[in-house]
Amino acid sequence: MSRRQIKTRAEDYSRWYQDVIAAADMAEHAPVRGCMIIKPWGYGIWERLQRELDDRFKETGHENAYFPLLVPKSLITKEEEHVEGFAPECAIVTHGGDKELEEPLYIRPTSEAIICSTYAKWINSWRDLPILINQWANVVRWEMRPRLFLRTLEFLWQEGHTAHETHDEAAEEVRRMLDVYADVAESVMAVPVIKGSKTASERFPGAIDTTCIEAMMQDGKALQAGTSHDLGQNFAKAYDIEFQGRDGEMQHAWSTSWGVSTRLIGAIIMTHGDDDGIVVPPMLAPQQAVVVPIFKGEEQAAEMCADAEAIVADLRAAGVRAKADTRDHLRPGAKFFEWEKKGVPVRVEYGARDKASGNAVIKRRDTGEKMIVPLTEVASTIAGLMTTIQAGMLAKARAWRDERTFVCDDYDDFKSRVGDGGFFHMRWCGEAACETRVKDDTKATIRCIPYEGDDDPGACTICGADATGIRPIFARAY
Amino acid sequence: MSRRQIKTRAEDYSRWYQDVIAAADMAEHAPVRGCMIIKPWGYGIWERLQRELDDRFKETGHENAYFPLLVPKSLITKEEEHVEGFAPECAIVTHGGDKELEEPLYIRPTSEAIICSTYAKWINSWRDLPILINQWANVVRWEMRPRLFLRTLEFLWQEGHTAHETHDEAAEEVRRMLDVYADVAESVMAVPVIKGSKTASERFPGAIDTTCIEAMMQDGKALQAGTSHDLGQNFAKAYDIEFQGRDGEMQHAWSTSWGVSTRLIGAIIMTHGDDDGIVVPPMLAPQQAVVVPIFKGEEQAAEMCADAEAIVADLRAAGVRAKADTRDHLRPGAKFFEWEKKGVPVRVEYGARDKASGNAVIKRRDTGEKMIVPLTEVASTIAGLMTTIQAGMLAKARAWRDERTFVCDDYDDFKSRVGDGGFFHMRWCGEAACETRVKDDTKATIRCIPYEGDDDPGACTICGADATGIRPIFARAY
Repeated sequence: MSRRQIKTRAEDYSRWYQDVIAAADMAEHAPVRGCMIIKPWGYGIWERLQRELDDRFKETGHENAYFPLLVPKSLITKEEEHVEGFAPECAIVTHGGDKELEEPLYIRPTSEAIICSTYAKWINSWRDLPILINQWANVVRWEMRPRLFLRTLEFLWQEGHTAHETHDEAAEEVRRMLDVYADVAESVMAVPVIKGSKTASERFPGAIDTTCIEAMMQDGKALQAGTSHDLGQNFAKAYDIEFQGRDGEMQHAWSTSWGVSTRLIGAIIMTHGDDDGIVVPPMLAPQQAVVVPIFKGEEQAAEMCADAEAIVADLRAAGVRAKADTRDHLRPGAKFFEWEKKGVPVRVEYGARDKASGNAVIKRRDTGEKMIVPLTEVASTIAGLMTTIQAGMLAKARAWRDERTFVCDDYDDFKSRVGDGGFFHMRWCGEAACETRVKDDTKATIRCIPYEGDDDPGACTICGADATGIRPIFARAY
Repeated sequence: MSRRQIKTRAEDYSRWYQDVIAAADMAEHAPVRGCMIIKPWGYGIWERLQRELDDRFKETGHENAYFPLLVPKSLITKEEEHVEGFAPECAIVTHGGDKELEEPLYIRPTSEAIICSTYAKWINSWRDLPILINQWANVVRWEMRPRLFLRTLEFLWQEGHTAHETHDEAAEEVRRMLDVYADVAESVMAVPVIKGSKTASERFPGAIDTTCIEAMMQDGKALQAGTSHDLGQNFAKAYDIEFQGRDGEMQHAWSTSWGVSTRLIGAIIMTHGDDDGIVVPPMLAPQQAVVVPIFKGEEQAAEMCADAEAIVADLRAAGVRAKADTRDHLRPGAKFFEWEKKGVPVRVEYGARDKASGNAVIKRRDTGEKMIVPLTEVASTIAGLMTTIQAGMLAKARAWRDERTFVCDDYDDFKSRVGDGGFFHMRWCGEAACETRVKDDTKATIRCIPYEGDDDPGACTICGADATGIRPIFARAY
């Protein structure tokens, strides 16, 4: 147990995760089992993440819209694989306005059903394509083993739904949005990810290809951080999205869908957090710097707090989100701990001695490094540190992941080591039987078949049959 | 019927409203009766409105958070008046994860129940106060007479929920947020509003005071555009929000709640729309200017479209949200009509003759005024017009409302005229019986007792008894 009432990662990783969320005041469990209350510090991170994603969606030509929460049972059951995948997880409304409903309504577990059936009305000609729409929404999936942010009964997400004239265009869209996700993961969240395709057994129900970004958490487990699906013509056929093509013939559209959720906050926590709490990447931190004035007595308090506010004004002018912690009932040490737990990138300590020498003390949350800096340079130093810290966090996470990534040609070796975590690149023959065997033997799955890497033909590490292409990643996952 | 397949307001106001929404491609009905699909043009307006509101919430010290959609029945039924008011309108989830639930879950019709019960856990001491939280969310209320944007079964809104140490502070918050709403209505939506308090019979269930902003639509009916509630200690007592005060004694907190919804888009349509479609205030327009190049044949198309894109680049550099409509399968006239229906504040026409003379034609949507402007001045002219149009729309709407606002001392006169619309300031004795009589006689209600105005004692216009204070507004309402 660390000094902050947080179990260390070494003691109990799962408990550490929960403790860190509580200590950082990010979220808590709601009265309905599996539901989550996202508190202001957690939601502030989500808001910034939303903005970064939304800006990129718009830059790539998408518009936002909003489709309803409630979907008639008859609509949701149209695409067979889709309904098999989702119906058992659905929450069902049977009563409304003091009456029993004639037809039960499903709370959307995802919106393909309602959106595709609407697109069918909007699309008549190839001139109506592409349709490039995103929505920010809540969805509900009945979760049996809920964990804050990672798996909750209700979660917040965005879901993009597009329809295209050709399969090439749809496939291009699928990869474009996967690239957007990878960019946000790496350049905003500082979470390195591997882009690839899921195997058939791990695909989104109804998709012909599910692409994903996979990150490694600090316990060596994989976390699927975002998915982008090529739905082929499956949903267009189920929901009658037909259009007159350039050749005058009626044909079915090609559709895609792609989403990321509040689960990304779990990824940030488990990538960057340490035994003192979370560490928030500067680009997402609701506060990037907190100035803690150190004072004794009321008179000194007024003076030092005014100085602290002046430093904050300098920081804001330099483009840094900053605040002064001028609370008078807490000791400086208590404030230091609180902002450490919350993962604020930089703390400024400023007391009478600092004032006398014309300096302030800057402490980095990511490395723990302390610097004594002239007051006139505090703002510019911290503004520069934001970039340094952001880049440093990504580099550190990438090095950490790469150290736990292995090329493995010995299945017994894999079996003995996968429990300790890590990504294992093994050759795979492509047969579902080998996936099942791995899962039964080790609980590990194929996280993805990466896009980047060299073709590396040889014998399947599991069964010895011929294997071609890039080696998939095998790992245990959240 | 106008040339755009929109019924005129004079022909059928209610039909006009629906036609305009369809013609502007803002929203449509969903498969579930009463639910709404908000299309990109409508959602784009909502996004800008959200941003303007959210910025002001943050400037006044509020943080965003997120509370769950699903609320256990036992929680929602704790505040008596509240549950009486809302329970009959609730959608109820009885099944989840393929099982019948032990306790039914209500989809939030509003979040006082879940938020107040959570605050009870967060608040222990006066030092924990105030709590100033807002959430952006969807809510569901079973509507029997749905109308797009105005009354839908599911709608999008924000709901602020605050808790305070004293009633004075809570009352100040209630008015502060009402002022924020009035500011956004007038300076962003260009919709003039009157601030005031509801009478007891029109209060939010459980509130001790409901304040509101009331706007007048073009049919002379009132629309409640936002409410801010003083909940006194009612919810704190029902949900046990207790804290240790500065004097060491345990006491109940004072809470408030306040909200505006996608209904505001209905207010914009019915304040500014005309028989050609909607008119969007420049501050909310997803596109503020659309440049329509006029060309014949492919060669000229390329040239004129390139010029149009150059004008758009100038406009963007001048801070105007602009796009060129370079579609080659539509005639210029069809494009003009389309953007008129959508209410884009300014259109730029640019053809070969304009090119030869070095000019472009600018047409204002609000007044229909056309201007011929040198190409070099197009961007600066339009940037300036954004302010002019915004102010002009507010002034026009205010003049329109003021012309239909009457001081009335003759109940028979009121009865004969209220059906034509308008706000009637009559003296009121304060008795609910008089409100009921007015409602039974005319379907009109007291919209609010305005904050601004002179005390004007005299005889109640309805019953003749003594009446004091500012005259309430009587009107029919949405």
